[in-house]
Amino acid sequence: MALIVQKYGGTSMGSVERIEHVANKVAGWRARGHQVVVVVSAMSGETDRLLKLAKSISPRGSRREFDQIAATGEQVTIGLLALALEKIGVPSRSYTGWQVPIRTDSAYTKARIQDIDASRLRADCEAGIVPVVAGFQGIDETGAVTTLGRGGSDTTGVALAAALKADECQIYTDVDGVYTTDPRVEPKARRLDKITFEEMLELASLGSKVLQIRSVEFAGKYKVPLRVVSTFVDGPGTLITLEDSMMEEPLISGIAFTRDEAQLTVAGVPDRPGIAAAILGPIGEANIEIDMIVQNVGADGTTDFTFTVQRTDYERAMEISRKVAGELGAKGVNGATDIVKVSLVGVGMRSHAGIASKMFTALAAAGINIRMISTSEIKISVVIDEIYLELAVRTLHKAFGLEDGAKPA
Amino acid sequence: MALIVQKYGGTSMGSVERIEHVANKVAGWRARGHQVVVVVSAMSGETDRLLKLAKSISPRGSRREFDQIAATGEQVTIGLLALALEKIGVPSRSYTGWQVPIRTDSAYTKARIQDIDASRLRADCEAGIVPVVAGFQGIDETGAVTTLGRGGSDTTGVALAAALKADECQIYTDVDGVYTTDPRVEPKARRLDKITFEEMLELASLGSKVLQIRSVEFAGKYKVPLRVVSTFVDGPGTLITLEDSMMEEPLISGIAFTRDEAQLTVAGVPDRPGIAAAILGPIGEANIEIDMIVQNVGADGTTDFTFTVQRTDYERAMEISRKVAGELGAKGVNGATDIVKVSLVGVGMRSHAGIASKMFTALAAAGINIRMISTSEIKISVVIDEIYLELAVRTLHKAFGLEDGAKPA
Repeated sequence: MALIVQKYGGTSMGSVERIEHVANKVAGWRARGHQVVVVVSAMSGETDRLLKLAKSISPRGSRREFDQIAATGEQVTIGLLALALEKIGVPSRSYTGWQVPIRTDSAYTKARIQDIDASRLRADCEAGIVPVVAGFQGIDETGAVTTLGRGGSDTTGVALAAALKADECQIYTDVDGVYTTDPRVEPKARRLDKITFEEMLELASLGSKVLQIRSVEFAGKYKVPLRVVSTFVDGPGTLITLEDSMMEEPLISGIAFTRDEAQLTVAGVPDRPGIAAAILGPIGEANIEIDMIVQNVGADGTTDFTFTVQRTDYERAMEISRKVAGELGAKGVNGATDIVKVSLVGVGMRSHAGIASKMFTALAAAGINIRMISTSEIKISVVIDEIYLELAVRTLHKAFGLEDGAKPA
Repeated sequence: MALIVQKYGGTSMGSVERIEHVANKVAGWRARGHQVVVVVSAMSGETDRLLKLAKSISPRGSRREFDQIAATGEQVTIGLLALALEKIGVPSRSYTGWQVPIRTDSAYTKARIQDIDASRLRADCEAGIVPVVAGFQGIDETGAVTTLGRGGSDTTGVALAAALKADECQIYTDVDGVYTTDPRVEPKARRLDKITFEEMLELASLGSKVLQIRSVEFAGKYKVPLRVVSTFVDGPGTLITLEDSMMEEPLISGIAFTRDEAQLTVAGVPDRPGIAAAILGPIGEANIEIDMIVQNVGADGTTDFTFTVQRTDYERAMEISRKVAGELGAKGVNGATDIVKVSLVGVGMRSHAGIASKMFTALAAAGINIRMISTSEIKISVVIDEIYLELAVRTLHKAFGLEDGAKPA
């Protein structure tokens, strides 16, 4: 018998029929002898509807009130799922964030969990009752309702699993696991049975939007085994786990990419200390998020400084960069918006040389020009022209043997 | 400077524009130097939508979960109104029932308020903040969310006014006060400036659905001056107050009626003790509500026992009555569904003789036959054929001088 925390997202709670389907799944796990604690999101679209209502009155109004309003979405679904469980003979009880309680700081709309009192949930489990907990929300020390920000229900699931010392936290979603790359780009993409927390973090931050990044960080920190499973298709999903528990570690786990990139280069900047801060400071102050940063030292005492931003921020970033370039005496600013980033992710590359060269060779053989390169311990990212995205992903997928049925490289 | 509790119903909170209108009203009272605590209902239709969703999963499911779900409607509107107030420069803070807290018993879906801790609301008022409180809801001793049943927001308003020792509780609705009778039946109906709690109770229970009965009882018990006002039309509304504060008390306050009646007569019942219980017991056990009861002693040692029920319960009540009549050896059961009840209400009739005879004379002059009569200290009700409803109301309205501009009788 295991204690399992299951989290079901908005799509899984999207209608009365789907809620009843979830109830049946929960009942199945319970019938197999497990204790189950369920965490749910609001019905799909509901949080957006509520926030739109709030914004229509006061777009920049009190965040405390935004949270008061937004938290009602999950309060409805916990009640509905508890009713659906009760109807099929599974004793159940719903809990809002404050009823658990899940204590957070007061950073409304993006609060962080500080402490969970799991005693009531544990007592329910021991009494054969399935607690259904509202994801995405908590209570601060003033007694106000808080929300954890987008995707916060994943974090609630992991945090509850940690507090309950659960055997596994299962994240039910509309995909059946984590893939080597996006199957829409490479139909030969393969579902991974296992992946490490670090790899998952790199994949998640690179646009594989299966899990909220914070929940993966949290799971890694508290060593909660995390499994991504489909609500609609039975299967083992993908287990996200600690590195040292992986027996035969594959070299490369997957290929991630983001289309939403734009590149800016401040060229011919006099090379002296403080250049990076002088350029990126004003960009950051304008609330523009910077992704990759590459600086090349030139031969003539000047340097080219290149960085990428989200495509929607390109115009504003260009404007600021031109101003800064003038002040710094740089030669000029150029940029591009028709670019993408493709990344190879794998903890195996730590202990294997030659991965980068293999990657660049494969891309060159396919005639793909690399505009920027950036590396981390378990990731190599390249920026290329957007038209080569699919070709690059398929080329690398094949080169590193990630296809379904292929032997890991 | 006065402390005023204002309650706004679902129609007043029905859209973003209406919520902003309410915010402006509240700001106006505050600008005139008053402290205001606001109680709101859910947006019109929202509570029905939520309960329909719950029922679609499990019509007879856990009432605790029904309340968990239904209470979200007000949690949305408190947040929206707080945002609207903040936007026009009025500091505001929203409170759910549990945040106040408003403590209730655990009779889910029809809980009763036991205790209110008004200290946070009072502190807000003193700090110039307008608290916006969710009506209709509270928290029980297990920490579960409870609701007070239909119209419970009125009760929340009155209970808060009592706890805060407010100078007045204003109930904002879509009518501009309490009328001498329904203006759709008698266009000459007149708005009452004042009415006593007792009269209001009689009018409310007779189908003048301006206020929830429990809230009037509560206001009477705790001596909270209650005012019915329109959200949409400026005006003084109707003040519901203690009898002894009324200077020139009118004889009759108004004429109430209910169309939704059906009459059953168990005729020729052997007249012995326990007859009423024998007949009404099985009706009550079938959850059928009984309204009027009249028993006439006959000359032949038998009695005719007549009572009224809601029209939708007529068939079931008839079936049960026939069975009971057989057991009691009664002559038979007859009934009618095309009947209505018309009532004259007024505290003045306590001290004035001749009201009943004036009423019967007026009805007789109009050719209206009376089927049943029932009286209480401040009310005389008659059951008549439905086709005479409008005629009876207008006849009595004129006979007792209730018309607009007429001198009270």
